[in-house]
Amino acid sequence: MAISAKRWLMALLVAAAALGTGAGCARQKSAADEVYVKPGDHDKYYAFLSGGHSGQVYVYGIPSGRLLNEIPVFSPYARTGYGFDEETKKMMAGYTWGDAHHPAISETNGQYDGRWLFINDMPHARLARINLSSFLTEEITGPIPNVSGLHTFLLTPNTEYALAASRFSAPMPLGTYQPIDSYAKTFDGVIAAMKIDPKSGHMSLDYEIKTPPIDLDISAAGKGASEGWAFFTSYNTELSYTDMEVGASQHDQDFVVAVNWKAAAQAALEGKYTMVGGAKVIDPAKTPGIIYFLPTPKSPHGVDVTPDGKYIVASSKLSPTVTVHSFDNMMNAIRKKDFDGSWRGTPVVRYKSTMVAEVPVGLGPLHTQFDDKGYAYTTLFVDSAVVKWQLGSWKVLDKIPVTYNPGHLAVVGGDTTKPEGKYLLAMNKITKDRFLGVGPDFPTIAQLVDITGQKMRLLLDFPTMGEPHYGQIIAADKLKPLRLFDLAKSSAPGVVHSEQEAGITRNGNKVEVKMVAIRSHFKPDNIEVNQGDEVTFHVTNTEQDENIAHGFALDFTNLDIEVAPGETKTVVWKADKPGVYPFYCSNFCSALHQEMQGYLAVRPRK
Amino acid sequence: MAISAKRWLMALLVAAAALGTGAGCARQKSAADEVYVKPGDHDKYYAFLSGGHSGQVYVYGIPSGRLLNEIPVFSPYARTGYGFDEETKKMMAGYTWGDAHHPAISETNGQYDGRWLFINDMPHARLARINLSSFLTEEITGPIPNVSGLHTFLLTPNTEYALAASRFSAPMPLGTYQPIDSYAKTFDGVIAAMKIDPKSGHMSLDYEIKTPPIDLDISAAGKGASEGWAFFTSYNTELSYTDMEVGASQHDQDFVVAVNWKAAAQAALEGKYTMVGGAKVIDPAKTPGIIYFLPTPKSPHGVDVTPDGKYIVASSKLSPTVTVHSFDNMMNAIRKKDFDGSWRGTPVVRYKSTMVAEVPVGLGPLHTQFDDKGYAYTTLFVDSAVVKWQLGSWKVLDKIPVTYNPGHLAVVGGDTTKPEGKYLLAMNKITKDRFLGVGPDFPTIAQLVDITGQKMRLLLDFPTMGEPHYGQIIAADKLKPLRLFDLAKSSAPGVVHSEQEAGITRNGNKVEVKMVAIRSHFKPDNIEVNQGDEVTFHVTNTEQDENIAHGFALDFTNLDIEVAPGETKTVVWKADKPGVYPFYCSNFCSALHQEMQGYLAVRPRK
Repeated sequence: MAISAKRWLMALLVAAAALGTGAGCARQKSAADEVYVKPGDHDKYYAFLSGGHSGQVYVYGIPSGRLLNEIPVFSPYARTGYGFDEETKKMMAGYTWGDAHHPAISETNGQYDGRWLFINDMPHARLARINLSSFLTEEITGPIPNVSGLHTFLLTPNTEYALAASRFSAPMPLGTYQPIDSYAKTFDGVIAAMKIDPKSGHMSLDYEIKTPPIDLDISAAGKGASEGWAFFTSYNTELSYTDMEVGASQHDQDFVVAVNWKAAAQAALEGKYTMVGGAKVIDPAKTPGIIYFLPTPKSPHGVDVTPDGKYIVASSKLSPTVTVHSFDNMMNAIRKKDFDGSWRGTPVVRYKSTMVAEVPVGLGPLHTQFDDKGYAYTTLFVDSAVVKWQLGSWKVLDKIPVTYNPGHLAVVGGDTTKPEGKYLLAMNKITKDRFLGVGPDFPTIAQLVDITGQKMRLLLDFPTMGEPHYGQIIAADKLKPLRLFDLAKSSAPGVVHSEQEAGITRNGNKVEVKMVAIRSHFKPDNIEVNQGDEVTFHVTNTEQDENIAHGFALDFTNLDIEVAPGETKTVVWKADKPGVYPFYCSNFCSALHQEMQGYLAVRPRK
Repeated sequence: MAISAKRWLMALLVAAAALGTGAGCARQKSAADEVYVKPGDHDKYYAFLSGGHSGQVYVYGIPSGRLLNEIPVFSPYARTGYGFDEETKKMMAGYTWGDAHHPAISETNGQYDGRWLFINDMPHARLARINLSSFLTEEITGPIPNVSGLHTFLLTPNTEYALAASRFSAPMPLGTYQPIDSYAKTFDGVIAAMKIDPKSGHMSLDYEIKTPPIDLDISAAGKGASEGWAFFTSYNTELSYTDMEVGASQHDQDFVVAVNWKAAAQAALEGKYTMVGGAKVIDPAKTPGIIYFLPTPKSPHGVDVTPDGKYIVASSKLSPTVTVHSFDNMMNAIRKKDFDGSWRGTPVVRYKSTMVAEVPVGLGPLHTQFDDKGYAYTTLFVDSAVVKWQLGSWKVLDKIPVTYNPGHLAVVGGDTTKPEGKYLLAMNKITKDRFLGVGPDFPTIAQLVDITGQKMRLLLDFPTMGEPHYGQIIAADKLKPLRLFDLAKSSAPGVVHSEQEAGITRNGNKVEVKMVAIRSHFKPDNIEVNQGDEVTFHVTNTEQDENIAHGFALDFTNLDIEVAPGETKTVVWKADKPGVYPFYCSNFCSALHQEMQGYLAVRPRK
């Protein structure tokens, strides 16, 4: 057989063209291409991950996994002078750390509204609020009365409340001594409702609900069908206080605590509380209809509500299942008083009546997230995997190894009524061999998984700062970050708007310095004071050009602040020792940054 | 024309095979593929970047740009409890921050030996040493006498000395008051030589050299041909002390200060010093042959010695050139006393005699690095670029934009006699539009550039933590990170090797708790003390399994430590207020991590 050269030539050219354009080598976009954000391009999503015992929040770009920012919350941060200036020092109230667990973006109608990020500090029972425009911590509450170990909190779907619970029970009010072995009789748990001002975001305690001394663990807000309710897992219904590893793992079932927070708010309004430790504490044994116990196998850890609000999914860490409770069934059971009796005055709803599925996911299920297509994703701590299963059919469909021992996972829009099924981020506790060694203290690890297909696909490993417990992922276009402070509108203490207003005033032994920092000098830059003076520096960065931050650092002291364009910060220093103290701009700002310095001379006492 | 179908078929198959295997689509590996490290694989290099005013060192993997670790040095770090336990608290000596500038890996024969990383704290004039096996800070010196603003230091090629200089002059000894306007007469600069113990790495002050009150800026060690010498740039030969932006930018030339540190050591041995502030201070006006001034245009910032040690390259921030001095020429000029007179007793070597090139690199040259092929790379702060030029021909060959305003740059093995010309990392000060916004405080940025080809090629942008000033990049196989502490060999205060040794002892009002942390409990886990007791906790993690760290956190206190496998840490707490304080493992360790808790009860005073 012979055909014309021309026809073959055509065939060859077509084939070559098809292959040469990449059709032959890019059938599936490579993982490298999926996560690479080329210089100048931006990530598509923000991921806000808690830092655990670092006390901070870390902001990552997704899909690149690049760490964009550390937001200091509960620990000082010399990089920005957080915890060094008077305002933030006051906010931190003497605590030098926190254990930041569960970040939550504020919601409107069950959607992330991008206004604030709330986060808890477990050991000091505090909540903090970060402004998602300035990316600064604006508020840290004091320790919430009666709450011991604030491991979990949730935001209600319109950010009316932050509901926070005590993981560790203690005698109330806190500060009361009772022998530890009187635990079952004298220790109490509590769920606290912090009201959130819709305009300012300011938090204030409304009411609390007393619980038995069980360990309240993780929580989720009802939404859609279940709006007005909230759900808390618990362990240690055994009321163990020593050898808990064994003691708190005895019962085959513990409880999901279902809370009708609107009914509780009404009860508080009606005066159905007693004051304990400065808080209005509602006793559910005396005020029924506020909380119910849903028996759930076994030491459940995570609890998550499906986007439609119809199901409450609890991950039972000591049973290879997630337990699905139907909200409708629960309401029916409550209406019918379909109870298995009560415990310490709280009704125990019959398990068979609320439970619609025990999904056999695998070993050590901890947390579940949902996508926009009716699938659920559960981390398996012991199996080191994420499992995909279907709502409704309750069938397990896929399983992907993650390395190693995942805790939480986060899907874009994970806590909302409309999650976006694009990526899943597994936050794993153990890295072992995954990265270059950095000594005996290993980093934690996040793994980015593509969940758009039938099968999950691992795209990227990246190390994470601190110990992330949970994350919030939000599309980048939902935030409108502030790019500089408007100096003209500033009324910060000691602010000056121009170099003409800068200067030094003395009142007895108090010296007030109103200082301007601008490329590339301080004004004033020579200051003489007397030993024993208390010197207050108000430093204003009068730049109105983005990204031109100045630092103010005084040698041989703990005075260190960074001041962003248009910002004013105040630091106070006692001039105890004579000598000459240089100060300088600690943030490289210009070609003449090195010349941005001055001297503070302290004359000795005569 | 017609040819056989068979021949055409062969041609088609060959072509298709060639294209299909990727030869057609991977002519050049994409930047995405160059930097992607697929899950489970490791980076090839460690980059140690200083954090500037964060006070820390950050460890990145290269080429991925992933942040592998934060090493706390000068600032507390709640993540690990650094600055919280007694040992690190003592090392920090009351300072809560530092300004970490110029990391330096210890060298043997001019090569990185991977034993230690040294880093300076500018405002408190301290040096720190990090063990590159444990990745822990092992030593922080006290403030070095007479040094005010320790902006620069260098390591000699066998880590005999760290030579550190004062950026800000001050009246000596520090603590002496002089009116600021007596600057030229009463302020002094100093170069301090800290001797390093070759076995332990311990630093101790040997001698100091007095200089005029110029601002000593950046430094580099002589090596190879120039071993035994060190070079420091300076600005402010005008001796300005106010309005320095203008005042210190007058002279067309300032100095590179050439220091014969071996001659100085000998002079110190011979007693040619006076004691000032506890230091042996050599006055070069009285002891000639120790320092020389090399005139250099104009406010030079970076100084770098070529790998062979033959040239001293100074980047003149206010002149569009780098100035190349020949070491041989300098030695000849010194021998011949080819001087332009002297200044304050120090000979000024004739510029034309040492200078061999003024390379026209562009605007705002700051720092230079070298590769293994005879090329030099200089950052241009004002031009926002890196320029490649050739040693010997002094020709500019290539220029690549970097975004924006680069300070230092680092090449693999950058400070050694054998740099590896693979990557260059530009550390840029300004990011502007390069990343998703994170509020008015922008991150800094590093850019990874491939320097294997004739033309430089930008591969990756990544945000950096704190404000990196300089970095050290080393091949991963040159470090052997420790993976866990050997408990059997530990003699840490309060260490216990098994649960049997754990316990509580009381001595008056001092209570000592020797505690074991192991999956998933503390022993003891119930502790009762009296109000007013001083409680010392020695917490030993008796795990001998990699990556299983435990935390020990006491609620409502600033007691927070992480304890790695085999490690013991000690914290002390005054039991001032009665009540029940839960403690817990703050680092997720196992499926029963949540059960790893205990109670400390404080009985009220009777």
